[in-house]
Amino acid sequence: MEVNRLQTILQSVQSGEMQIDVAMTELKDLPYEDLGFAKLDHHRTLRTGFPEVIFAQGKTIPQVLAIADRLSERSHKVLITRCSPECSAAVTEKFPGSTSFDVARICAVPGKGDAPDNSYSAKGKVLIVTAGTADIPVAEEAAITAHEMGSEVERLFDVGVAGLHRLLDQRERLFSARVIVVVAGMEGALASVVGGLVHQPVVAVPTSVGYGASFQGLAPLLTMLNSCASGVCVMNIDNGFGAGYFANMLCRM
Amino acid sequence: MEVNRLQTILQSVQSGEMQIDVAMTELKDLPYEDLGFAKLDHHRTLRTGFPEVIFAQGKTIPQVLAIADRLSERSHKVLITRCSPECSAAVTEKFPGSTSFDVARICAVPGKGDAPDNSYSAKGKVLIVTAGTADIPVAEEAAITAHEMGSEVERLFDVGVAGLHRLLDQRERLFSARVIVVVAGMEGALASVVGGLVHQPVVAVPTSVGYGASFQGLAPLLTMLNSCASGVCVMNIDNGFGAGYFANMLCRM
Amino acid sequence: MEVNRLQTILQSVQSGEMQIDVAMTELKDLPYEDLGFAKLDHHRTLRTGFPEVIFAQGKTIPQVLAIADRLSERSHKVLITRCSPECSAAVTEKFPGSTSFDVARICAVPGKGDAPDNSYSAKGKVLIVTAGTADIPVAEEAAITAHEMGSEVERLFDVGVAGLHRLLDQRERLFSARVIVVVAGMEGALASVVGGLVHQPVVAVPTSVGYGASFQGLAPLLTMLNSCASGVCVMNIDNGFGAGYFANMLCRM
Amino acid sequence: MEVNRLQTILQSVQSGEMQIDVAMTELKDLPYEDLGFAKLDHHRTLRTGFPEVIFAQGKTIPQVLAIADRLSERSHKVLITRCSPECSAAVTEKFPGSTSFDVARICAVPGKGDAPDNSYSAKGKVLIVTAGTADIPVAEEAAITAHEMGSEVERLFDVGVAGLHRLLDQRERLFSARVIVVVAGMEGALASVVGGLVHQPVVAVPTSVGYGASFQGLAPLLTMLNSCASGVCVMNIDNGFGAGYFANMLCRM
Amino acid sequence: MEVNRLQTILQSVQSGEMQIDVAMTELKDLPYEDLGFAKLDHHRTLRTGFPEVIFAQGKTIPQVLAIADRLSERSHKVLITRCSPECSAAVTEKFPGSTSFDVARICAVPGKGDAPDNSYSAKGKVLIVTAGTADIPVAEEAAITAHEMGSEVERLFDVGVAGLHRLLDQRERLFSARVIVVVAGMEGALASVVGGLVHQPVVAVPTSVGYGASFQGLAPLLTMLNSCASGVCVMNIDNGFGAGYFANMLCRM
Amino acid sequence: MEVNRLQTILQSVQSGEMQIDVAMTELKDLPYEDLGFAKLDHHRTLRTGFPEVIFAQGKTIPQVLAIADRLSERSHKVLITRCSPECSAAVTEKFPGSTSFDVARICAVPGKGDAPDNSYSAKGKVLIVTAGTADIPVAEEAAITAHEMGSEVERLFDVGVAGLHRLLDQRERLFSARVIVVVAGMEGALASVVGGLVHQPVVAVPTSVGYGASFQGLAPLLTMLNSCASGVCVMNIDNGFGAGYFANMLCRM
Amino acid sequence: MEVNRLQTILQSVQSGEMQIDVAMTELKDLPYEDLGFAKLDHHRTLRTGFPEVIFAQGKTIPQVLAIADRLSERSHKVLITRCSPECSAAVTEKFPGSTSFDVARICAVPGKGDAPDNSYSAKGKVLIVTAGTADIPVAEEAAITAHEMGSEVERLFDVGVAGLHRLLDQRERLFSARVIVVVAGMEGALASVVGGLVHQPVVAVPTSVGYGASFQGLAPLLTMLNSCASGVCVMNIDNGFGAGYFANMLCRM
Amino acid sequence: MEVNRLQTILQSVQSGEMQIDVAMTELKDLPYEDLGFAKLDHHRTLRTGFPEVIFAQGKTIPQVLAIADRLSERSHKVLITRCSPECSAAVTEKFPGSTSFDVARICAVPGKGDAPDNSYSAKGKVLIVTAGTADIPVAEEAAITAHEMGSEVERLFDVGVAGLHRLLDQRERLFSARVIVVVAGMEGALASVVGGLVHQPVVAVPTSVGYGASFQGLAPLLTMLNSCASGVCVMNIDNGFGAGYFANMLCRM
Repeated sequence: MEVNRLQTILQSVQSGEMQIDVAMTELKDLPYEDLGFAKLDHHRTLRTGFPEVIFAQGKTIPQVLAIADRLSERSHKVLITRCSPECSAAVTEKFPGSTSFDVARICAVPGKGDAPDNSYSAKGKVLIVTAGTADIPVAEEAAITAHEMGSEVERLFDVGVAGLHRLLDQRERLFSARVIVVVAGMEGALASVVGGLVHQPVVAVPTSVGYGASFQGLAPLLTMLNSCASGVCVMNIDNGFGAGYFANMLCRM
Repeated sequence: MEVNRLQTILQSVQSGEMQIDVAMTELKDLPYEDLGFAKLDHHRTLRTGFPEVIFAQGKTIPQVLAIADRLSERSHKVLITRCSPECSAAVTEKFPGSTSFDVARICAVPGKGDAPDNSYSAKGKVLIVTAGTADIPVAEEAAITAHEMGSEVERLFDVGVAGLHRLLDQRERLFSARVIVVVAGMEGALASVVGGLVHQPVVAVPTSVGYGASFQGLAPLLTMLNSCASGVCVMNIDNGFGAGYFANMLCRM
Repeated sequence: MEVNRLQTILQSVQSGEMQIDVAMTELKDLPYEDLGFAKLDHHRTLRTGFPEVIFAQGKTIPQVLAIADRLSERSHKVLITRCSPECSAAVTEKFPGSTSFDVARICAVPGKGDAPDNSYSAKGKVLIVTAGTADIPVAEEAAITAHEMGSEVERLFDVGVAGLHRLLDQRERLFSARVIVVVAGMEGALASVVGGLVHQPVVAVPTSVGYGASFQGLAPLLTMLNSCASGVCVMNIDNGFGAGYFANMLCRM
Repeated sequence: MEVNRLQTILQSVQSGEMQIDVAMTELKDLPYEDLGFAKLDHHRTLRTGFPEVIFAQGKTIPQVLAIADRLSERSHKVLITRCSPECSAAVTEKFPGSTSFDVARICAVPGKGDAPDNSYSAKGKVLIVTAGTADIPVAEEAAITAHEMGSEVERLFDVGVAGLHRLLDQRERLFSARVIVVVAGMEGALASVVGGLVHQPVVAVPTSVGYGASFQGLAPLLTMLNSCASGVCVMNIDNGFGAGYFANMLCRM
Repeated sequence: MEVNRLQTILQSVQSGEMQIDVAMTELKDLPYEDLGFAKLDHHRTLRTGFPEVIFAQGKTIPQVLAIADRLSERSHKVLITRCSPECSAAVTEKFPGSTSFDVARICAVPGKGDAPDNSYSAKGKVLIVTAGTADIPVAEEAAITAHEMGSEVERLFDVGVAGLHRLLDQRERLFSARVIVVVAGMEGALASVVGGLVHQPVVAVPTSVGYGASFQGLAPLLTMLNSCASGVCVMNIDNGFGAGYFANMLCRM
Repeated sequence: MEVNRLQTILQSVQSGEMQIDVAMTELKDLPYEDLGFAKLDHHRTLRTGFPEVIFAQGKTIPQVLAIADRLSERSHKVLITRCSPECSAAVTEKFPGSTSFDVARICAVPGKGDAPDNSYSAKGKVLIVTAGTADIPVAEEAAITAHEMGSEVERLFDVGVAGLHRLLDQRERLFSARVIVVVAGMEGALASVVGGLVHQPVVAVPTSVGYGASFQGLAPLLTMLNSCASGVCVMNIDNGFGAGYFANMLCRM
Repeated sequence: MEVNRLQTILQSVQSGEMQIDVAMTELKDLPYEDLGFAKLDHHRTLRTGFPEVIFAQGKTIPQVLAIADRLSERSHKVLITRCSPECSAAVTEKFPGSTSFDVARICAVPGKGDAPDNSYSAKGKVLIVTAGTADIPVAEEAAITAHEMGSEVERLFDVGVAGLHRLLDQRERLFSARVIVVVAGMEGALASVVGGLVHQPVVAVPTSVGYGASFQGLAPLLTMLNSCASGVCVMNIDNGFGAGYFANMLCRM
Repeated sequence: MEVNRLQTILQSVQSGEMQIDVAMTELKDLPYEDLGFAKLDHHRTLRTGFPEVIFAQGKTIPQVLAIADRLSERSHKVLITRCSPECSAAVTEKFPGSTSFDVARICAVPGKGDAPDNSYSAKGKVLIVTAGTADIPVAEEAAITAHEMGSEVERLFDVGVAGLHRLLDQRERLFSARVIVVVAGMEGALASVVGGLVHQPVVAVPTSVGYGASFQGLAPLLTMLNSCASGVCVMNIDNGFGAGYFANMLCRM
């Protein structure tokens, strides 16, 4: 709870403008909304201008629709991630004007809230790099997330270390970005190599792409955590959303 | 075997009221029933007033029905957990008066046994808390289990630590419970936070909700085991039944 | 923050008895004390009557002494767990009247605070059971913790399942306890067996006692988490303190 | 290669009865048969009287049929384990007189070879014990294997440690067996308990029955490997065949 | 508890020869002895003629001495395994006539009990095979255990599969054993190879000998559990005692 | 970038034959082609004469077809590995003259590029050995890969260590190979045994064939990494392609 | 290699100012220095103004001294991390003016190079937060690293979630930072809680502080990777240096 | 056993030159020597010209000396790997003319056997590359091994991917080698990068250098196994000897 708001409430109580029970309600009535199966947090949105995000995996389609319905009342945009094709179809049918990004498994639903102020607007370019073609779905989740949150996004796909010249040839694009997201499965070495080439922050996302001793992404996860290059931070396996969100956050600094 | 019963049998033997072979049978004839593929333990029920419970997972539907049939003869209520929709349909068709709790995957079958005495009745409220919406099925398994065993149950869903004020706002509900069950996937931090806020026992249930380095619930399991908050004990991953049973047991103390 | 206190402060502000800046300080000035390297939480103690506890492992001896010094000002008793022999010697030298429990690696330091009120006093007996002799240090940590917090404690050591009659012979002692703590390394089967015999809560503590595929306690940890007996909850490996604390908490319910 | 046979061949060479090239062929011509995708080992069968066994998992149905066809030429019986329903149907259609054990996933195909001599016949009873009903398929694999190899087999199902009296009540059956196979999932504690009760060899088979931190059978596997009871040896997870084979082998000693 | 003894007690009660309280004591007074930190199980020894065994690891030297002292009163021989050099020195000093097997880390203490009857005497030879020289300590633990329990023991060391002819050359020794214990670290392949050569039971003991991806014996443990050869059972990592005990048990069948 | 080419470009710049911007383009214009979702590396092919390889797993069928289309323009042959039946059908329909190796899951597409020069031609025979029949698909991936790259390939299937004479009987075939690829699941002991018999390089490929504690190939992977035989190197689980490629590379040395 | 420099070199070649062999040397002679056992990378330092960093762990003291000697020639400051007390003593003896930060295990050696230009200077405050006192060494490594690289650093230690009010009370300090580094062992829940409270980037560092199922930091690592709060990125276990470096890098954006 | 030798023996038997019992002895008397705790395999040495190798780890110093003594009788050179400083001192004292390579932990002992013939002599250069300075001990083990076995060896140390230009600058050295051994800890990405640059075989050796989530070398091991670059094979963690041996073997092809 913000200090200013606390001070205001206390002043209103002192001045008699506000009754004690009202003040107590106020002090408790933080801006979230209770749907029973979900408690919607409007607080963050209002403050930062980030759109609301629904993580659809593990929720029923009616739950997703109900949450989206309520969030779109107050927010200017609602993102739904890990959206199955069935869920995506239900969303676009219910909310006209929605956009479905199939590879990224994201739906963007327009909302009735005010557009965020510009004080947190993102600056600079987010470059999304993948080691292989099979990493593209996770990369697209990152790209769409960052873009929908206001970042300029550029893609550089399939530049894994097995053909290093493909990457080296693109060094200028690497240098021109403000933040670089590296998405890689298999052994995940690309994050270290990129981290060693650039002096910008590198957000590394291991993917479950691979087989055998990749162990569903454990191999690239460990690779990235142990990166000998400084300036590399790591996200959960396949967490494209987290990487896009974090990259956008860095561009708002 | 209870000491009292042993004494009674020995006294009957001494007095000649009971023959040796009868005594030997008695001493061995503990109240269980053999169906070949299952040995039904009536002992626990008679003593504690807990309903009988069948763990359906890994059993065929005919096996579940046969066990339920026998248990319902002696018990006042039979619970069937981890009940697939097919199994649930078969149960409710065969046993009129059954209730199917779909989200919790539990069926409650009425039995012919006497209602349990009240000496073990549960006191106080069990509060079931979840970090997210996707944790609800496990939470419902806990809730239905505790309720069917005689506990008052309250639910507080989707108060994960990413929006801490949603939880802090509900502190009074936390303080009013006798036992708190915390159900959380992803990183499972909610158990530690709740454990740090309250002075009641917290029963933590990690769920397999999550992806990537959650490793099917390993992440929240380790989180909960290593909780820096005292007063937190841990159940197996997704073991809503165990948590509800244990919470009810604490309320009977 | 308690609702009552909040109401009192607001009323004082309304009545003009309390200035706004004082109220703001009050609202923030929760009872903890900052030593720089540690923030001492006096709040919990005052409320529950539990003695303060310092986890010594990972702290330097001067840090432990400084924390103990401050806590003993307000608390009636301070426990120091995971206390190395050197640390223990330093504590008993600095704080006359301290008791050192060597096997349990605990020091109890008397404090200047008031004894806790009795409203949370522990009832019933905590029975600490071990599978083997080598599990005794962890069991003693549990026993001393529960005892110093006000519980009656009984010990039943070396009744592992390899000689089941040793355990069965003690069933009356099992039945007479309010809570049972089972401490077991190797394969940890004792928790399931005790859990199947009794109807009281069983707090299971895996130990790192064992070798080879015990993997420093992973084996009994998994055993206990997967226990087929209901009514068993699990603590971290070697966490005797947690088990004693939790058992005492249950006896205060 | 047996010493006797070597001596015989050398004597035949010395005496001129056998040409060198024939001897060289003989010395290499061990009794196996090459199907290209499989090399059939007739040697073991002829010597020990064990029926031939085909592990069907991972083989195509035509491969299984072809191997069974060849093995049945020389062996008196062929067992096919891990037989899918489709595979089982194909086997019983192609080989009249075959028996399909559905729960055990085994087919027994009669062969044209001579019945084994009796010098290796199995003595005593193999008792197959399970902790729960869901462990029965693995137990049946062990039971059918041991039985088809000539052992007397008895079953004792669903006597897990959560209701210990069900097991204790059957101690005489435990004592009457020559070898005991314990099949248990969940936490696998039954093997230790049985091992502590009896003085016969216990062959422990962990199963993948369970959920959460059972990790597909890792939990009971570790439990059994760390058993505090002596006289317990361990098989691979779900390896009912191996246990039945090993138990039968012990009965032939 | 044996059925016969139960019958005898009941008859004595019926006939008035035995008072009820005496009978109750009898029924509980199974032959174990309580030292507080240990409960000594005399039952097993009396019945089977096996010497008593103390697992010294994790016990203090005074605890080991006290247990040995008590066990040697009733048993004809006491074995102490995992005996550190300090412990070994203390044992041989306190108990004249003791033998210390340094490589095996075992002490044998003579006892005052009667020699066991011969009805369980071990027949046939136990062959202890190692893959390498570094596996010898575990192998010696197995060898001394089996020998002290009455088995004839033969050793065949350093015949790992890297030089297969060393093993093949010894096939006659393999064939002449009743039970074969295979002790191997590194990758543990020797157990499968021996299991494929012989038709006797093979008791496989993985050792923690190795480095890197051996992971303290996990590699040979998994190798042995997954052995493609039938007739191989597995012990815990470095569990030479268990293997020697089990091999001796098989020779008593 | 090759030194010679660099020198040539610099000389052309010096002599004025080449403009600076052309030189800069040249210096960057390495021979790869950008399809957006993939960056095709023609460099390797031109230099070594290896055919191009597409790893189909994780790519959509249109992506595979597009990549194959472009690669076949410059290369004399394109291999597509991990090709699903659907993908295989699409490939053979689109590219006449393609060959589909179903067991190996490989398609070979003829290209328009020049055949490679002979300076890197493979010499000697690659022998592909499997432990069991179920390992054949991975073995075939290795065999087809090596063969399509120009190696003579021989197969020796189902010679696992459970019937060692099947392997020993084929020693001459082992000795006649230049490189031996050993493909084995279950416990993977075959690699060590072969490695101990021969003095050629052994390329070991663990497979996910097995069950239980094989943990999807972890068991044979660890076995092979810890091989006590020198001269054994290891590939990823199920990586038949890598083994065939590496074996062919060794034959080109 | 930078485009500008390449252009300059090519222009010099074209104009004849630079010979081809000089150009080739130039094109290869990137600013690193070869000590045989180490190749010192002066390139990064010159460009970014970051001091040079030596990771001392695994290097001999003479190696560390030699590298520091060379680096201090060109750099204005050299940091040595993971510096043992012996190494630290040797460094401060050899390089007058060095500073040793004992808790952080870092030495700072002054160099002869020019101070970096200000174009990359760090802005805003880095707040280093720990869950407990035992996490301080890792936190100090982060704090000293960030400070020596030019960041303003503030510390907030021992505010773990077991006493949540200690953290909530410091929200203003949290809000006033530009980047927050959260250092936590045990279960690592603090990162999620902080991440849920603030809208700045959170750099999470798991520590190996803990015991039992913490598994040397695996538990908090998984917790942090699975954080339900967006805006959290993760470093390797105990990697305080990486976190301080990354936080400083973010402040330079 | 070689075919030729078998033929010769059989001919001698046929001609009467050789008695049957002599032939039988011959057929069994393969060239190994039995020291009881070790069976020395002279066979391999005589055939291939490789020196004998003793793996000292896990052996006592007297065992190492005894084995070295016997092997040096027949071999021209004996290598002792994993030699502790104490062991090394004992070796050089006992065997004059020995060389001790301290960083590599190898001793080379001159033998009395004939120098090997040249038919297996190694051709081409083995290049040993490390990612960091701390990887040098493992790299030296590989280098000394390959060199002592007859290979020309070149070292390229500290060219990890964090400063990629250090590696790229040495491409000519990479291209000039026949086999490249890449030794890397931390995340192990160097193997993939080198594998992508060259077309020679790359032998990758993960090291246990690192901390935290390196998990004693598991991280680089998985990285290398999952390498996206073809032509990379993997050795056990820290297995410098294996890599040097394998590289030398490839140079003898």
